[in-house]
Amino acid sequence: MKKLQKNQIGREVPEHIQQMGDVKPYIRSGKRKEKYITESDKVYTGKVVGSLKEAIVKAGLQDGMTISFHHHLRAGDMVLPKVMEAIDELGIKDLTICASSLTSSHECLIDYIKRGVVTSLQTSGMRGELGKQVSRGLLDTAVVFRTHGGRARAIQKGDVTIDVAFIAASCCDDMGNMNGQQGPSAFGSMGYAMVDARYAKKVVAVTDNLVDFPAYPVSIPQTLVDIVAEIDQIGDPELMGQGATRKTKSPLELTIAEYASKVLIASGLIKNGFSYQAGTGGVSLAVVRFLRDYMKENHIIGSFGSGGITSTMVELLNEGLFTGLLDVQTFDKGAVESIRNNGNHIEMDAGTYADPLTKGCVTNNLDIMILSATEVDVNFNVNVLTASNGNVMGALGGHPDTAAGAKLAIVVCPLTRKRIPIVVDEVMTICTPGPSVDVVVTERGIAVNPNNPLLKAELVKAGLPVVDIKELRDMAYSITGKPNPPKFGENIIGVVEYRDGTVIDMIKNVID
Amino acid sequence: MKKLQKNQIGREVPEHIQQMGDVKPYIRSGKRKEKYITESDKVYTGKVVGSLKEAIVKAGLQDGMTISFHHHLRAGDMVLPKVMEAIDELGIKDLTICASSLTSSHECLIDYIKRGVVTSLQTSGMRGELGKQVSRGLLDTAVVFRTHGGRARAIQKGDVTIDVAFIAASCCDDMGNMNGQQGPSAFGSMGYAMVDARYAKKVVAVTDNLVDFPAYPVSIPQTLVDIVAEIDQIGDPELMGQGATRKTKSPLELTIAEYASKVLIASGLIKNGFSYQAGTGGVSLAVVRFLRDYMKENHIIGSFGSGGITSTMVELLNEGLFTGLLDVQTFDKGAVESIRNNGNHIEMDAGTYADPLTKGCVTNNLDIMILSATEVDVNFNVNVLTASNGNVMGALGGHPDTAAGAKLAIVVCPLTRKRIPIVVDEVMTICTPGPSVDVVVTERGIAVNPNNPLLKAELVKAGLPVVDIKELRDMAYSITGKPNPPKFGENIIGVVEYRDGTVIDMIKNVID
Repeated sequence: MKKLQKNQIGREVPEHIQQMGDVKPYIRSGKRKEKYITESDKVYTGKVVGSLKEAIVKAGLQDGMTISFHHHLRAGDMVLPKVMEAIDELGIKDLTICASSLTSSHECLIDYIKRGVVTSLQTSGMRGELGKQVSRGLLDTAVVFRTHGGRARAIQKGDVTIDVAFIAASCCDDMGNMNGQQGPSAFGSMGYAMVDARYAKKVVAVTDNLVDFPAYPVSIPQTLVDIVAEIDQIGDPELMGQGATRKTKSPLELTIAEYASKVLIASGLIKNGFSYQAGTGGVSLAVVRFLRDYMKENHIIGSFGSGGITSTMVELLNEGLFTGLLDVQTFDKGAVESIRNNGNHIEMDAGTYADPLTKGCVTNNLDIMILSATEVDVNFNVNVLTASNGNVMGALGGHPDTAAGAKLAIVVCPLTRKRIPIVVDEVMTICTPGPSVDVVVTERGIAVNPNNPLLKAELVKAGLPVVDIKELRDMAYSITGKPNPPKFGENIIGVVEYRDGTVIDMIKNVID
Repeated sequence: MKKLQKNQIGREVPEHIQQMGDVKPYIRSGKRKEKYITESDKVYTGKVVGSLKEAIVKAGLQDGMTISFHHHLRAGDMVLPKVMEAIDELGIKDLTICASSLTSSHECLIDYIKRGVVTSLQTSGMRGELGKQVSRGLLDTAVVFRTHGGRARAIQKGDVTIDVAFIAASCCDDMGNMNGQQGPSAFGSMGYAMVDARYAKKVVAVTDNLVDFPAYPVSIPQTLVDIVAEIDQIGDPELMGQGATRKTKSPLELTIAEYASKVLIASGLIKNGFSYQAGTGGVSLAVVRFLRDYMKENHIIGSFGSGGITSTMVELLNEGLFTGLLDVQTFDKGAVESIRNNGNHIEMDAGTYADPLTKGCVTNNLDIMILSATEVDVNFNVNVLTASNGNVMGALGGHPDTAAGAKLAIVVCPLTRKRIPIVVDEVMTICTPGPSVDVVVTERGIAVNPNNPLLKAELVKAGLPVVDIKELRDMAYSITGKPNPPKFGENIIGVVEYRDGTVIDMIKNVID
């Protein structure tokens, strides 16, 4: 017979059973007056606070901690600046910022870094004055540049522990159920922030649109949210989508786009059920329009479009040319309207998008990816992070993730930009490794990675101007001359992490 | 100056940086022919298999492991029987089944237990012949009975480790994105299974409706799914919703319902923004209809209805009487249609519903809960698991979770059923502890928990027939006589776990 023990409601229960091991007897710890009976039955209320300062104090933010932000509000983001202002007023120092990316709305960080409020950055990229000053040694620590997939991986794996995540919500209720699809500052998918919410120790929703419970759709559920901070405005809608859907009329860009679409067609991949991702540049969007015409003429219906979603991709969805869109970041108002209204315009988190530790992320199953480049070299390595003057002025984004995953990864770029060669001997910073890139399309010719001879044969057969990538480099240099590299010092201002957590390159400080 | 190392793409990177510690250099491990560059870039395909046997082998199921099932298909479930048949044919033994609940469609387990295929059960409840035989010592181990919230907690905390989760999907794509809302076997919310998917080592989607990628809405994403098994049919739609929305015409039940609704009104809790949960019995649904009339007359709009959702609650949603419904289990066709079409009919997982380890589960914020009872005793303890003959024939469900969380937890029950007293001296099995229960409503009177004197005063003021619970017991016994308890042996056939993981009661074997 089993040994028994009496619990606090007066019943005998076993001391030990096979399925549980030692049995914990039921305990009445609460008081009836407080309604809950045990600690488990406690009511979790009072999440809403009226100021960011209160939220920060309540979250227990301390010197030396790591905080996170997401950049779905892009150039219109007001959350990072307002949170940092409140943190500064509270006198908290020595913070690491783990951001999904940093934009032109984040130049306030320069001052916070100078004053020791922020001492370390992890981000997909940065631009403008912040990039320039970081490149000149603003920080004492190296910035960790991560891809969108790599960031999700790092957070999931515990390479970075987020103490407090600040999450902008254009719609949120008092328990913290939230989305980015409703409200005056609607920005669409919360893809990057969804990962932060799952793993951060404390989660603060920052909203300018507190709605009646329950908020819906639920992009991030109440079970992950500690605090809801209500503020006046989270973002400037005018700046949020700026330039994302520029419709190019440049003959040069249209030429590149036309070549790229011919590469797509010649590859044989454009058939029923194919998948596709494009960036937001003028060339990328022009390729989508060429693709659309081809799909319509040939009655082809694709499977999915993914990544950052623009109105241009939404047009194809609405015309029935794709079964669905998988959206980690919504780029403009039209796309926000679509994710709100179209069931097959699907929000996905950054893990589903590109985290290689999951049981199958979307980027690894892509057919076609159209990529941009700041530089590409004769080994097909791509730089999207540093400018010819050595300054950090871009972002890894999903570039290395999608290039690695796509069956056909096409870099579209002009041969030169503002008298600077784009096809070069050796890129300044390797962001995406050459073996991930299949084709480089310029206005003067198309180079195919020698690892892909079958594709090269197809393109030649289709009558496309296929050239050796070294020829493209030579043409570029013949226009611009071979530029003098900027002068670098010996301090490492950044490391470029590949999506798997290894380091693929480093960035040294620029000396003027 | 920092020590450097060269990585496999030929770049120098630091050996160590502050933010990463030791730096892992980039490694090209893949072959170009296979497209992926490093292990991280590997393509995750071929999830679909044509039979359950193949899925089970691929999942690596071994003797002694734990497998899980969910019961959203209720009496129509074909997944558990078909999976168990395949397991048996493969000769795998000694399994623990961790099910969200067991229904009349699971009597096949009796034979599998007799033959050692299944040696241990964890469930919310069981019925019929299975319950009877378990009560007579069918298993050598004690069944662990868990609440819906307690099961989510146990899985999240690691009290139980699921080796392979089998998840019925009425709509699924080849990567494992799935939902229960679309397709011929649509059953609605996947609430219980969503927790299994997040924590199980291997996840097998079992579907009779493989759709083009991407399936939507995405209740469980591809990132959590290992294998997709396609079978002919996952459930019998005729049996899935059986009796859930029975509209009572019984004068006795209508009397109880009317008293219960008067208690609600007298409590003062029925006001704008209140929240409500009701079970599926005839009385519960009749209370909802009384409530609806009252809300309309008084222009009251509630916040949310939660839990298992019926068409009756959907009617109130569609009339604008609630802001939203939070749905962990969808009880009938009308409710399935609603979750598919109404944005404010929101799918929630069992963690959001009732897991006390989250940052705020829904049950802990409930205003009103209408509860059923197999027995209730003079200390307000409730039994919903064992019949007067000692047999297990019910389920904990969300009973203890909601009773503990709700501001007002009302038990509705007749004084007697088939000459068996319902209000008794001491319940056979304590499922929900008395301090969680505020009121017991019968057709012969209303008893208020003495811990809640203010409520008692309100009910008396409202002219309701308030009596001492001992009077109710006496009335019951005067009708039925005090029954002889069944004869129990000394073997423990089950333990009743409270939602926090402590054990509140045990169940001994019945001797005929």
